[in-house]
Amino acid sequence: MDLYTYYRSTSSYRVRIALALKGLDYQALPVNLIAAPGGEHRQPAYLAINPQGRVPALRTDDGELLIQSPAIIEYLEERYPQVPLLPEDLAARAHVRGVAAVIGCDVHPLHNVSVLNRLRQSGHDEPQVMEWISHWISQGLTTVEQLIGDSGFCFGEWPCVADVYLIPQLYAAERFNVSLEAYPRICRVSELAAEHPAFIQAHPSNQPDTP
Amino acid sequence: MDLYTYYRSTSSYRVRIALALKGLDYQALPVNLIAAPGGEHRQPAYLAINPQGRVPALRTDDGELLIQSPAIIEYLEERYPQVPLLPEDLAARAHVRGVAAVIGCDVHPLHNVSVLNRLRQSGHDEPQVMEWISHWISQGLTTVEQLIGDSGFCFGEWPCVADVYLIPQLYAAERFNVSLEAYPRICRVSELAAEHPAFIQAHPSNQPDTP
Repeated sequence: MDLYTYYRSTSSYRVRIALALKGLDYQALPVNLIAAPGGEHRQPAYLAINPQGRVPALRTDDGELLIQSPAIIEYLEERYPQVPLLPEDLAARAHVRGVAAVIGCDVHPLHNVSVLNRLRQSGHDEPQVMEWISHWISQGLTTVEQLIGDSGFCFGEWPCVADVYLIPQLYAAERFNVSLEAYPRICRVSELAAEHPAFIQAHPSNQPDTP
Repeated sequence: MDLYTYYRSTSSYRVRIALALKGLDYQALPVNLIAAPGGEHRQPAYLAINPQGRVPALRTDDGELLIQSPAIIEYLEERYPQVPLLPEDLAARAHVRGVAAVIGCDVHPLHNVSVLNRLRQSGHDEPQVMEWISHWISQGLTTVEQLIGDSGFCFGEWPCVADVYLIPQLYAAERFNVSLEAYPRICRVSELAAEHPAFIQAHPSNQPDTP
């Protein structure tokens, strides 16, 4: 498989974690989102691969080009079920996916770089942008803290799709100086992931395009 | 099943469509998002049900409370597979979920009422807010137009999860005066849905809490 990825992209980071947890080999094809002019993702060469011009995108071993991290992660779960990232019970699966959706729909989209740039263009100064980011991350993590369990990863002994979403979100929180002090359960998951080989392998600091 | 819903909520509308397409009975429990003070979703009674204070939430027939429309829709698909809303082929499923994610992650979160109110609080006037909405909806629909098929619903003869997300997004586009002229495929899907009993049943104008 080929993964179009950027080391610091939150949604690429999710897919890298899922691949690593499942022990799947892939070739990383870095797309530099900040290379002049306007990023490699906006150049014709990448738009021919993914017309949306976003990362990640996954070329499967059947040659299919898949976009959007939620769709890619569900694909990996269905195609490579040997290391499951969702529980078997249907309601339990919905609880895991609920946490993923809080992060994937209610938090991350609001501090995507294109959104922040739009805020800047419409007159927000940097303190206002940082307040915007902090507001949405804090609100989302407050919800997640209430939804996850009291021991282990988000929902127990093994990492699941909720962890796949949460850990990259915490990387973003740290980058934007959002304190995690109010979230002891989340801090516990963060500490476990920091020691876990798959999360280490997928981390932005360990990618071929890490500066 | 009990569905906590608001007639005009885009994400509640998605779940209503999925329930209707699958022919599932449910009790609608309206949560008035604009009732004083600050909406019923922020009152203790509703926060005791869903601490995130958002709609939709689904109480399953096993008594489980599920939140977040993406998680609820996947649950319904797994629990009631008789009328499938995802194709069988794994890559095809990923393509359908990719369209859902473009709408559910890259468009709708950016014009959620809480986001618009935050923009207003930080000094955006109404023309700026409308420009913000229009920008993200247009960008998302431009992507969707390239991803969906040339006949029938988004991906063929039968409605699928992509249609479940698209039709409520078009309702929002209309509400915010975003033109659909540039999207002939999307307009075709919209016309088909307008004649389809499940989409009619789920429409905001046909709910128990419709004013």
